[in-house]
Amino acid sequence: MTDDADTRLAELEATVSALAARVQELEDDREIRDLLARYGYMADNCDDEGFVNLYTEDGAINLSISKEAAASMGTDAAVWSGKDAVRDFITNPNGHHSAQLYGKSMHFHGTNLVTHIDGDEAVADSYGMAVATADGENTIVSAGNNQWQLRRVDGRWLIRERRGATLGDDKFTTNLDATPE
Amino acid sequence: MTDDADTRLAELEATVSALAARVQELEDDREIRDLLARYGYMADNCDDEGFVNLYTEDGAINLSISKEAAASMGTDAAVWSGKDAVRDFITNPNGHHSAQLYGKSMHFHGTNLVTHIDGDEAVADSYGMAVATADGENTIVSAGNNQWQLRRVDGRWLIRERRGATLGDDKFTTNLDATPE
Amino acid sequence: MTDDADTRLAELEATVSALAARVQELEDDREIRDLLARYGYMADNCDDEGFVNLYTEDGAINLSISKEAAASMGTDAAVWSGKDAVRDFITNPNGHHSAQLYGKSMHFHGTNLVTHIDGDEAVADSYGMAVATADGENTIVSAGNNQWQLRRVDGRWLIRERRGATLGDDKFTTNLDATPE
Repeated sequence: MTDDADTRLAELEATVSALAARVQELEDDREIRDLLARYGYMADNCDDEGFVNLYTEDGAINLSISKEAAASMGTDAAVWSGKDAVRDFITNPNGHHSAQLYGKSMHFHGTNLVTHIDGDEAVADSYGMAVATADGENTIVSAGNNQWQLRRVDGRWLIRERRGATLGDDKFTTNLDATPE
Repeated sequence: MTDDADTRLAELEATVSALAARVQELEDDREIRDLLARYGYMADNCDDEGFVNLYTEDGAINLSISKEAAASMGTDAAVWSGKDAVRDFITNPNGHHSAQLYGKSMHFHGTNLVTHIDGDEAVADSYGMAVATADGENTIVSAGNNQWQLRRVDGRWLIRERRGATLGDDKFTTNLDATPE
Repeated sequence: MTDDADTRLAELEATVSALAARVQELEDDREIRDLLARYGYMADNCDDEGFVNLYTEDGAINLSISKEAAASMGTDAAVWSGKDAVRDFITNPNGHHSAQLYGKSMHFHGTNLVTHIDGDEAVADSYGMAVATADGENTIVSAGNNQWQLRRVDGRWLIRERRGATLGDDKFTTNLDATPE
């Protein structure tokens, strides 16, 4: 090989390597969008175990809900840590499993999506709303933003922590501040 | 060319070929998102023929609507097959062309989007809601999920079948089950 | 280098160059989605200066609002040109800064997104809705489409003009017509 060809080949290898990293990031962005979409599917299609399995073993839900809202769900906590706690959250008979919501609500998650990907860790910010139907009327039962702490485990993006704030709540306007630029 | 350079070149060709396939899939994903966006545009901007042309020649709309809902549209079917039937659907004076909806509604399609692409065939799952305005008030007149069976024809993604289920309907919680993992 | 290797190397260089342009476009598409997401964040998180800085120096907001709606905001214009005017728009005490909206509303922008990218210029079409909360009830206070004229400045996509039309308004059904195919 001539020196010139060697240089061209080396340059091309470097270009392709950098390009592959950019494609990987775009694929990660798409997979994270999918993950948030499935968050809605699992919740709305009554697949509780599928919902739990979107979380890491130490996954957590951290919602800035009021004491009153927590009390109405029969809990005094706004944080559910670990898969068993996540299961408690999604099967709460006064919460997601209530007659008003279970099989009768849709979680539109992942709009206004911004993802920050750093290897096997990622932060995703997004907006979401839950719509419930009753007597032919559709109501936005909740709206809020979420900061999703994500981790890739065995090649699959999972939720390490959902930090959610409800529109109207004190923490809403600062909940996405902690997100990397 | 030395053996070493030949090996490096062959490896790079294989890497670039695989990378091109991944980029193609990301482009397909984007084009499918565009298609579902335009589904809303055509419906909401009163472009009936544009709407029809988003479907393949044998394209179909398959909605899990109740007999009552079908009757209110002056039809006893929940399936519209072929472009003529799709045209009947979108120009139905008791449906989309009603005074309450035509030019006064928006179809937010393509949220919670997950695409499964396999060559020139694809399945896309998504959430959607229709918002109508009347007397300055905006109402969610319907919400549901859709499983879109898509096909690439002459380089353009088209709808082969829209399988829609309305929130609250029996089929809603299973409508996305048939989707590939 | 043999002629054969030279040909292969030149072909590969051309392929990689074309691939890089396609990846760049996908990255631009993602950055534009981010920009519209942040449009909501800045508005909803009460970051007025952050909102202003999403616009170019000559950036403009052009809304097809009625004279009545304009009058209720204490203005007779539906166009705000330049950063100072954009600041006036977002800090209007009878508009975005009203007690009903400021810190109590969410702008779901960037659904039904279609982007047209041409170098450092782009047009993005999208749907949006604003949801406000009051007394525990969430209402869609406005819904509409937007044609966003965008420009890349110093490597960052900014808004050159937001052309918005409200659902129910005369211009709604034609607002996206000017968009490239």
